Amino acid sequence: MEIKELGEFGLIDRLTKDIQPINSSTIMGVGDDAAVLNYTNKETLVSSQMFMEGVQFDLTYIDMEHLAYKVAMIAMSNIFAMNGQPRQIIVSLGLGKRFKVEDIEQFYAGLNKACTKWNVDIVGGDTTSSYTGLAINITCIGEAAKEDVTYRSGANETDLICVTGDLGSAYMGLQILEREKSVYYQQVQEYNNKVKEAQNNKDERRLEALRQERAAIEDFQPDFAGKEYLIDRQLKPEARGDILNQLREAGIHPTAMIDISDGLASELKHICEKSHCGCRVYEKNIPIDYQTAATCEEFNMNLTTAALNGGEDYELLFTVPIGDHEKIDKMENIRQIGYITKESLGSFLIARDGNEFELKAQGWPITKD
Amino acid sequence: MEIKELGEFGLIDRLTKDIQPINSSTIMGVGDDAAVLNYTNKETLVSSQMFMEGVQFDLTYIDMEHLAYKVAMIAMSNIFAMNGQPRQIIVSLGLGKRFKVEDIEQFYAGLNKACTKWNVDIVGGDTTSSYTGLAINITCIGEAAKEDVTYRSGANETDLICVTGDLGSAYMGLQILEREKSVYYQQVQEYNNKVKEAQNNKDERRLEALRQERAAIEDFQPDFAGKEYLIDRQLKPEARGDILNQLREAGIHPTAMIDISDGLASELKHICEKSHCGCRVYEKNIPIDYQTAATCEEFNMNLTTAALNGGEDYELLFTVPIGDHEKIDKMENIRQIGYITKESLGSFLIARDGNEFELKAQGWPITKD
Repeated sequence: MEIKELGEFGLIDRLTKDIQPINSSTIMGVGDDAAVLNYTNKETLVSSQMFMEGVQFDLTYIDMEHLAYKVAMIAMSNIFAMNGQPRQIIVSLGLGKRFKVEDIEQFYAGLNKACTKWNVDIVGGDTTSSYTGLAINITCIGEAAKEDVTYRSGANETDLICVTGDLGSAYMGLQILEREKSVYYQQVQEYNNKVKEAQNNKDERRLEALRQERAAIEDFQPDFAGKEYLIDRQLKPEARGDILNQLREAGIHPTAMIDISDGLASELKHICEKSHCGCRVYEKNIPIDYQTAATCEEFNMNLTTAALNGGEDYELLFTVPIGDHEKIDKMENIRQIGYITKESLGSFLIARDGNEFELKAQGWPITKD
Repeated sequence: MEIKELGEFGLIDRLTKDIQPINSSTIMGVGDDAAVLNYTNKETLVSSQMFMEGVQFDLTYIDMEHLAYKVAMIAMSNIFAMNGQPRQIIVSLGLGKRFKVEDIEQFYAGLNKACTKWNVDIVGGDTTSSYTGLAINITCIGEAAKEDVTYRSGANETDLICVTGDLGSAYMGLQILEREKSVYYQQVQEYNNKVKEAQNNKDERRLEALRQERAAIEDFQPDFAGKEYLIDRQLKPEARGDILNQLREAGIHPTAMIDISDGLASELKHICEKSHCGCRVYEKNIPIDYQTAATCEEFNMNLTTAALNGGEDYELLFTVPIGDHEKIDKMENIRQIGYITKESLGSFLIARDGNEFELKAQGWPITKD
C-alpha cells in the first residue's frame, strides 16, 4: 500500500494504535505534542542518535524488521551504558518514495520486538518524507537512581578494565556480508555481459538459455555456512542489560562505563580522557570468538585490529575497583582485560610479545569519500 | 574547513566546548552515552522531530543559522503546546559531503540563539554523514507541574477556542520565497541561453558583454519590499512561550492546547478528535495580518484557505472555559475564534456569509511526487 493513501496521521495511527504503555513512568505516550513522563526521585537519561541509509546501514543486507531491532538495541545500549534502565523510545523516520506502508509496518514489528525484550514503551513517532533514502532517529529515555548513574569520567587509577561478551565479531560479520554482496553483483554483471553478447550475435537459442539461468541469479543465496554467529552479531546485536543485573546482584558498582559502538580502542580513549587517566590493556585478554578468529584468517586481516577498531559490538566496557577482582573472575560473560593507570602513563595495548602500542580513537566517518 | 579534518569527535568537541548548562534539571549535558536530567516532582515532556532537506526546508531560501533557529523553535513550540517549559535539546545531524565545519558552526550559532532566548540547554549532539542532503532531528525535553500539563484531549463543550498571533503569514512568506526563487532561475536560464547562442555564433564581443552581465545575475536580490513580516514569519518563527506566562498571570488554565504547525483546520481537528467534541469557528474572527491579506490578493489566493491550511505559524491554539471570556478579551495577542460543541455536531467553519464548511485535517505530505 502506498503511504500517501493513508497520509501522515493515518500512517501514525495505524502503526501506533495497538501500543499499550507498560511503564509507570509513561504518563502519556503517542498522540500529543510531546510524550509526558514521570521520573520523580530518579535521574532521567536521554540519548538520541541518527542512522542514515548507506552510512550506518545497507538495506541490501538487512531487512526493515532487523534494522529496527538493531537501531532500537543501539539506542537502549546507550542507556544501559549509563547503568540505567531504558523505559521509552521515540522514533523519527524520513521515508524515501520507494517505501510502502508494509515496509514501515515491518519496521515497527522490529521495534516492538526490541522494546518488548526490555519492557520499553514507544511514546512517539514522527514520520516525514525524504527525497532520498531512509533516515532514522531514535531517542531513548531511561532512568537510574542517582547513586547508580555511571559516567565515563569515574575511572580511578588501579581500577580493573572489564569487557562483556566478545569483540570484533560484528565487524567480521560485516566483512562477510560485503563479500557476498560483491559476489552477487559480480554474477549479475557477468550475466548481463553474456546477454549483451548474445543480443549482439542475435543468438536466439543462447538468449533463451540465458533466460532460464536468470532465476538462479535472482535466487542468489549468500554463503554464511559456519559464520552464522558473526552475521547475527552484525544484524541482530543485543544490548547488554543482562550484565547490569549480574553486577547489581554481585554488589559491584562500576566506576566508569561506556558501550562499544566504535571499537574497544575508541571507547577506552573516551573513558581515559573523561576520567583523566591512562590504561594498559593486554592483547591476550581481549575476548574473541572462534568464528571471528577463523574469519580474520580467511580474510587475511589482523585479529586484534578487528577487535580494537571493528565496532558495532554493543558490548559494555567498564571499570571496577581492584577489590572486585575475584567477584568479576567468577562471573560469566565478563573478562578483565587490563587496568587504569595515571594519565601521564598514556593508553597502551600490551601485545602478546610484550611490545606496547598506543591506542587511538576513531568515530564513524562523518563524510563519505 | 573540511569536516574530516576534525573527525566526528573533534567536530562535536569544537561545537559543544563552550556550552554551559544553566538549568538545575541538567545534571550532565554533552559528553557521555546519554544526558542525565533530574525532573523530580515534575512531569517530563519529550518531543522529537525530523527535518529533511528539500521537504521541510530549502537551503536556497534559508541559511544554516536561521534554519537551526527555526527547527529549535519548532521543537520548543511542542513543549509550550503542552503548557510546559522547554529545558534541554538534543540535536542529530546527517551531513552531506558539501557541508563544511563553518556551516555546522553557523548551525550551532542559530541553535544557541534560540536556546538562549528560552533558557534551554543543548545536552547532546550526534553527527553522522549522509549520502545526500541535510537531515536534522531535534529532541526537546521540558517540564510542567502535573496540574499544568495541557493535552489535546481536555476540551469541553462550550469552551472558547482561542488562537495567538495571526495565521497564514508564514505560508504567504513561503509563496514569496518560491516566487523569487523561480524569478532567479528564470534569469539564469535566459542568461545561459544567450551565452549558448553567442557561442554558436562565435560572437566574441557579445560573449564579452555577457561576461560583464554575469555578476549582476549572481548578485540577484529577491524583492521582499513590503513583505518583510511574511518572510520573517517563514524564516524566523517564534515559539509562543510568552503566552503561557500571560495565561498564568491571568489565572487562566487552558483545557486543551496544540501548536499550529500544519494549519488551523488540521490542529482543530486534532483537538476535536482527542477531546471527542465538535467545533464552530468564525471566519471573520481568524486573525490575519494586513501583509498576508495583501499578498493573497496579489497571488490570487484564497485568504481563508491560507489561514486554515497554510501551516508553519507555530502559534498556539487552545480552549478555555467560557467563564474566562472577559479575561481573554482583555489580553493582547489572543483572539477568540469560536467554541467547542458536542461531537455529534461536527467541526465547521462559519463563513462571513453564514454558510458552514466542514473542516478537514492535513499533515505534511509524507511522500513527495
